[in-house]
Amino acid sequence: MLPPALYWQDNRLFILDQRMLPGAVMFLQCRTYEDVAVAIESLAVRGAPAIGIAAAFGIALGASPGRDEARLAAARLALTRPTAVNLFWALARMEKKIASLPDGNIFEGLLAEAEAILEEDAACNRAMGRAGAALLPPDCTVITHCNAGALATGGHGTALGVIRSARDEGKRVKVFSCETRPVLQGARLTVWELMEDGIDVTLICDNMAGALMKKGGIDAVIVGADRIAANGDTANKIGTYSLAVMAARHNIPFYVAAPLSTIDPGLPSGDCIPIEERRAEELKRLPGGGMLPDDYKIWNPAFDVTEAELITAIITERGVLRPPFDEINNLFPREVE
Amino acid sequence: MLPPALYWQDNRLFILDQRMLPGAVMFLQCRTYEDVAVAIESLAVRGAPAIGIAAAFGIALGASPGRDEARLAAARLALTRPTAVNLFWALARMEKKIASLPDGNIFEGLLAEAEAILEEDAACNRAMGRAGAALLPPDCTVITHCNAGALATGGHGTALGVIRSARDEGKRVKVFSCETRPVLQGARLTVWELMEDGIDVTLICDNMAGALMKKGGIDAVIVGADRIAANGDTANKIGTYSLAVMAARHNIPFYVAAPLSTIDPGLPSGDCIPIEERRAEELKRLPGGGMLPDDYKIWNPAFDVTEAELITAIITERGVLRPPFDEINNLFPREVE
Repeated sequence: MLPPALYWQDNRLFILDQRMLPGAVMFLQCRTYEDVAVAIESLAVRGAPAIGIAAAFGIALGASPGRDEARLAAARLALTRPTAVNLFWALARMEKKIASLPDGNIFEGLLAEAEAILEEDAACNRAMGRAGAALLPPDCTVITHCNAGALATGGHGTALGVIRSARDEGKRVKVFSCETRPVLQGARLTVWELMEDGIDVTLICDNMAGALMKKGGIDAVIVGADRIAANGDTANKIGTYSLAVMAARHNIPFYVAAPLSTIDPGLPSGDCIPIEERRAEELKRLPGGGMLPDDYKIWNPAFDVTEAELITAIITERGVLRPPFDEINNLFPREVE
Repeated sequence: MLPPALYWQDNRLFILDQRMLPGAVMFLQCRTYEDVAVAIESLAVRGAPAIGIAAAFGIALGASPGRDEARLAAARLALTRPTAVNLFWALARMEKKIASLPDGNIFEGLLAEAEAILEEDAACNRAMGRAGAALLPPDCTVITHCNAGALATGGHGTALGVIRSARDEGKRVKVFSCETRPVLQGARLTVWELMEDGIDVTLICDNMAGALMKKGGIDAVIVGADRIAANGDTANKIGTYSLAVMAARHNIPFYVAAPLSTIDPGLPSGDCIPIEERRAEELKRLPGGGMLPDDYKIWNPAFDVTEAELITAIITERGVLRPPFDEINNLFPREVE
């Protein structure tokens, strides 16, 4: 039975500590917005939608007694991670709520809004799952990267939600999960999540996906997203770009599954997406123990950008978008200035 | 000061145990061909040329008292690893020597042949280094994969030999080394080898190479090889194929550096190259300690094949070969049957 990425109880946000998976299922108890911020920064909670949801609850935790405190919490949470736009989307939505609530104790109102964001995200994922499952043949083998699953969202998952929905509709889906260096979200989270759900999954190293595609039998690549620009360019976990190029070489459809909250219509292209670079230590821990030497130089970008031209379709809760992704402009009409 | 991958002393083959690098410099003492076979299988010694050299010494160790014993050693050593053809090339060369030596104690003759193979390999690498260095601009940044260095050969290295020769000629070379999952030969061996030699090197995960090429400033990708078919198709460490595809997308020259002993002129194309699949355990060891669960399904091919059309040039001790690599047929004239 798969635990939720987070839940609210007894005036605390319980966050599944995903750094401990698959070895142990443990929850962090967040009593302050700072607890939530640290959980996001340290990757205890990760995945673009889940980060946004956690931040929304963080603002509720910070909303005591009033607006100023809630906005301070929002300012702190905005500093946690730069790339996933769902974080800023959730902060903006919570700010609207902060501004709209009557004077007095705004905690209950903000908590209700955070709970709505959580529930809406799970519902979006189910809608995406249905839309995406229609793209998969009855017997299929797919490659996925990182973890775009229930663990990364309010439930069901984005990329893994499509796989889950296809399975629920009676399709036979086999999955290859890239381990996703350096933090191994594929090896530690996706394989575990799919096995818990009884879905056939095989682990590979990231550098094996090309050889696997050449070997044949891969019907699709399905990934999530951290930020999608107005032209369809998509930032996602580092390595996604190479997967998309290899998929194009082998004529394999490359699908991105993401809610509209992952689209940043204000950005014209992927060149404008800020890419987080993380600590060298993530690459230095050696398998089985020990560390690489301190003086190693390391480059550790957490995300890369896949050009829209490499994306076969973007699966959203409002349906399947196709290149050149003009529909993004219809979904996000420019506000009159 | 870089230690040699192996050396002969006191009637023993000393093999640098590369599984311990970069933490410790330790040598295994091989007194029997079985010791050498286990060192090859366990990756204590690795790299196509070094495997061939180690096997040659292994046959000498087995040649007591005579031909039958030497041939038994060769049969055992042939079972160690299937992909690198240098192993079979060295075994064939040693068999010629076994057959040609006069009756009596053949040990000294086989030892001399193994020492010749070692010395010739180092000389080949210096010739390759000179030929390859001419392909690099005076200021350049290159990506390499796995370890095709002094540690993989009789000295100087193949891909890293080109880099080393370029540096020795006064060129300013910066290197990005892919960590090379799952065994991390890039992180543990290449970065260490280049740093020991004072060459500027930065470590990346394999899945970051595409983003790095897109960022710009990469002048070449240089890798070694484990087996090259008659048409130029090249088997090398898993992940090489994807690197070559990404290099082609970004108009970056993709060079393979390998001695003629890595060419298998009897194979028409890369489809015929046997690809070793290794134990699941290599992917299961978690950074910092711990293991992934036993019941994980894993696919772990150690090599992939890069089509000749993706290779800008193959750098050999006989000069630089260019597509469509017809010169391979001239270098290996078909014997009259």
